[in-house]
Amino acid sequence: MDPKTFMDIAVVITKLKMFPYFDIAHYALMCMAVRDDMPQVQGHQQSAQPFYRKHPLSTWVSCMLTCFAGGIIANVLLGEPAIAPFKDHKNLMVASIVWYLVFYSPFDIVYKLAKKLPFKATLSVLKEVQRAHKVYHGVLQTAKIYPSSYFIIVTIGTLKGCGSAIMKNFERMIRGLWLPGSNEFLQPSFTAKASLVASLVFLLERLNYISVPHPLIYFSVVIFFIYFKLSSIILGIRDPFSPFENLFCAIFMGGMWDAMRRAVSKEPKKDDESKDLRNDLLKTKEEKKKD
Amino acid sequence: MDPKTFMDIAVVITKLKMFPYFDIAHYALMCMAVRDDMPQVQGHQQSAQPFYRKHPLSTWVSCMLTCFAGGIIANVLLGEPAIAPFKDHKNLMVASIVWYLVFYSPFDIVYKLAKKLPFKATLSVLKEVQRAHKVYHGVLQTAKIYPSSYFIIVTIGTLKGCGSAIMKNFERMIRGLWLPGSNEFLQPSFTAKASLVASLVFLLERLNYISVPHPLIYFSVVIFFIYFKLSSIILGIRDPFSPFENLFCAIFMGGMWDAMRRAVSKEPKKDDESKDLRNDLLKTKEEKKKD
Amino acid sequence: MDPKTFMDIAVVITKLKMFPYFDIAHYALMCMAVRDDMPQVQGHQQSAQPFYRKHPLSTWVSCMLTCFAGGIIANVLLGEPAIAPFKDHKNLMVASIVWYLVFYSPFDIVYKLAKKLPFKATLSVLKEVQRAHKVYHGVLQTAKIYPSSYFIIVTIGTLKGCGSAIMKNFERMIRGLWLPGSNEFLQPSFTAKASLVASLVFLLERLNYISVPHPLIYFSVVIFFIYFKLSSIILGIRDPFSPFENLFCAIFMGGMWDAMRRAVSKEPKKDDESKDLRNDLLKTKEEKKKD
Repeated sequence: MDPKTFMDIAVVITKLKMFPYFDIAHYALMCMAVRDDMPQVQGHQQSAQPFYRKHPLSTWVSCMLTCFAGGIIANVLLGEPAIAPFKDHKNLMVASIVWYLVFYSPFDIVYKLAKKLPFKATLSVLKEVQRAHKVYHGVLQTAKIYPSSYFIIVTIGTLKGCGSAIMKNFERMIRGLWLPGSNEFLQPSFTAKASLVASLVFLLERLNYISVPHPLIYFSVVIFFIYFKLSSIILGIRDPFSPFENLFCAIFMGGMWDAMRRAVSKEPKKDDESKDLRNDLLKTKEEKKKD
Repeated sequence: MDPKTFMDIAVVITKLKMFPYFDIAHYALMCMAVRDDMPQVQGHQQSAQPFYRKHPLSTWVSCMLTCFAGGIIANVLLGEPAIAPFKDHKNLMVASIVWYLVFYSPFDIVYKLAKKLPFKATLSVLKEVQRAHKVYHGVLQTAKIYPSSYFIIVTIGTLKGCGSAIMKNFERMIRGLWLPGSNEFLQPSFTAKASLVASLVFLLERLNYISVPHPLIYFSVVIFFIYFKLSSIILGIRDPFSPFENLFCAIFMGGMWDAMRRAVSKEPKKDDESKDLRNDLLKTKEEKKKD
Repeated sequence: MDPKTFMDIAVVITKLKMFPYFDIAHYALMCMAVRDDMPQVQGHQQSAQPFYRKHPLSTWVSCMLTCFAGGIIANVLLGEPAIAPFKDHKNLMVASIVWYLVFYSPFDIVYKLAKKLPFKATLSVLKEVQRAHKVYHGVLQTAKIYPSSYFIIVTIGTLKGCGSAIMKNFERMIRGLWLPGSNEFLQPSFTAKASLVASLVFLLERLNYISVPHPLIYFSVVIFFIYFKLSSIILGIRDPFSPFENLFCAIFMGGMWDAMRRAVSKEPKKDDESKDLRNDLLKTKEEKKKD
């Protein structure tokens, strides 16, 4: 592609207004995620009517908390009003309309259509553009409050990008579900890791470690988000970071010392070791199959 | 009644000081609610001594959180200090004395008397006056911070009126109880709905949509609260809003489309439908019996 | 000891810098507490590898929340940014290094050494000095914001001293553990009570009720903390306050009225009473044995 055109596209992407189309895509995917998280409740109560028919208030609160999760969590951490993301009626109204259409549209047509691959992929692309926007503005705003606290800047940037994952436990509680055994810190999602990388990139840009025009950096992050999201939807690739993580954990999180201890102790435990290795390989294969 | 006298009463009600009598009634009913929520714990641990004898600190913290719930939750949402409601020793002292009397009075006389209908009704009337006062001041204060965010104004007004219901899950946690399956969003209480209506009325007044003198509006809300509270205590009417809600849910929350789908599909499912209708009627009757 | 020397030591203690040695001791003990709280998870999942090997992120977040618990909780209550304790990279880096060494040191040498009595006692002494420092500065800072709210001053002082105990439930949740049946309000630890006493002492000093030079008061609190911590580690004395508490509860929390009722009713229940007394005595003995 001609560099000039590429730069022009990058500048356009950087200046995109999120409201209304990108926000709508975000709200739609969030409401669908809440809805897809429900069958467990339904199955638990063994009733014919789905949960959201009987508890519209709980469903609405749950969806709103998920749609505005990044802002709410960031505000709580920064000591700002937790309710501030609802200050603007425009966003709240649009999110509520999306919620209504996803859950109660005639003949469930909106939900059923949005689950189809072409629509889902389109919504996801829009949402990833919005995610990049949120991460960038999270980094920007936090850097104004705490200019030299890089840890806080990166944390808030990451949370803006994957707030809904952190909110999940509380949002489930509103729906009467409590699954303390699973949370974002136990099994961080790829989204969270990608948001972390994007926050780091934006922070490095701010500290002048990256000497590339801003629109190009921003555009690269957007493409990075979209590329891996589409990989996940279409090809089923879950987490491209996990091999690096496993390697890191094996080396620095004690695995190295285990190996050294075994080597030093020189006991006839080779059988066990090779078994372990075989098990690990089998596990990796199984995981690949699942994905 | 003579309109002049009525207006005079309304003005007096509007200017009532909440401290100490109305606040005491509120604290007493809150502490009694906490105490009535305890037998489950007691039964669970199968011990002779009630929970509040063995864990006075937990009981006290629990009661204080319930007594000041509206203020605490509103402050957290508005980004103000969560501990601020305890700034004033006067209120905290009175609440603690009420807590002591409700739980540990000689021969349990205070609790037993307060459970009797005439005393309970009196306390409830005082408490409903205090509730109207809290909702009104919640609306007033929030409107100063966020003048054009009607959603936030109404939310804070409602929470000031029914904060203890939202606090219940956390307050129970302090007492070692965790019942995530029940919360105010799953089954909103009548109190919450009435507080919502009152907040809306006060907001409409503020926006000049209601051209009635303020004392009359305030007095009407007080009477509305007292009327339904006494109905609930004396006649056992639980929730006068529920028929409207059920109708609304049936029409807008998907029920209409269900009916249309059934009509369109023209399958011989008439039997099922009439069964459903019969079941619904039976349910309604059962619910009426329960109340 | 010569009063002059004693006073000199007190002045030195008062002006001690907490960073880095006292903070390191605090972080080490906190991380060790988190690690010691883990076997339950391990046992539950019945796996060969410990929890912290498989979930380093969750372990790290958990440890950071525990290390900075006092500051985080105090900030939330005072409406300040919850994330502010992480503003300073110096503390965060040191805490992370300590976390790494406690969990993943070569051959687990750091953890194993730190569990040995002499090292544990040394760390505990350093940590108690840091606790006194935190309680004092908690009281000081809160007194600046709310000069006349003694309740808030004492609460924040206490929470600064025993924040990790309050944080426990949330920190466990990050690790996928949820034990709502136990919390600091149900069974307050000795640390919490000692922090409360220290906060009261510092408040009384501030109100000029104690006419002793400040270094002496501060030094006394430090000695009080160290003395009881060492008693607990070396002699196994758990809670020197509990006899006073039990007496207080027996008199004021309803026990007195029970006794009076029994005396008034004059029924032949003397057997039961003496049984109760015997049971109580047996219980106390058992508790002593446990300690």
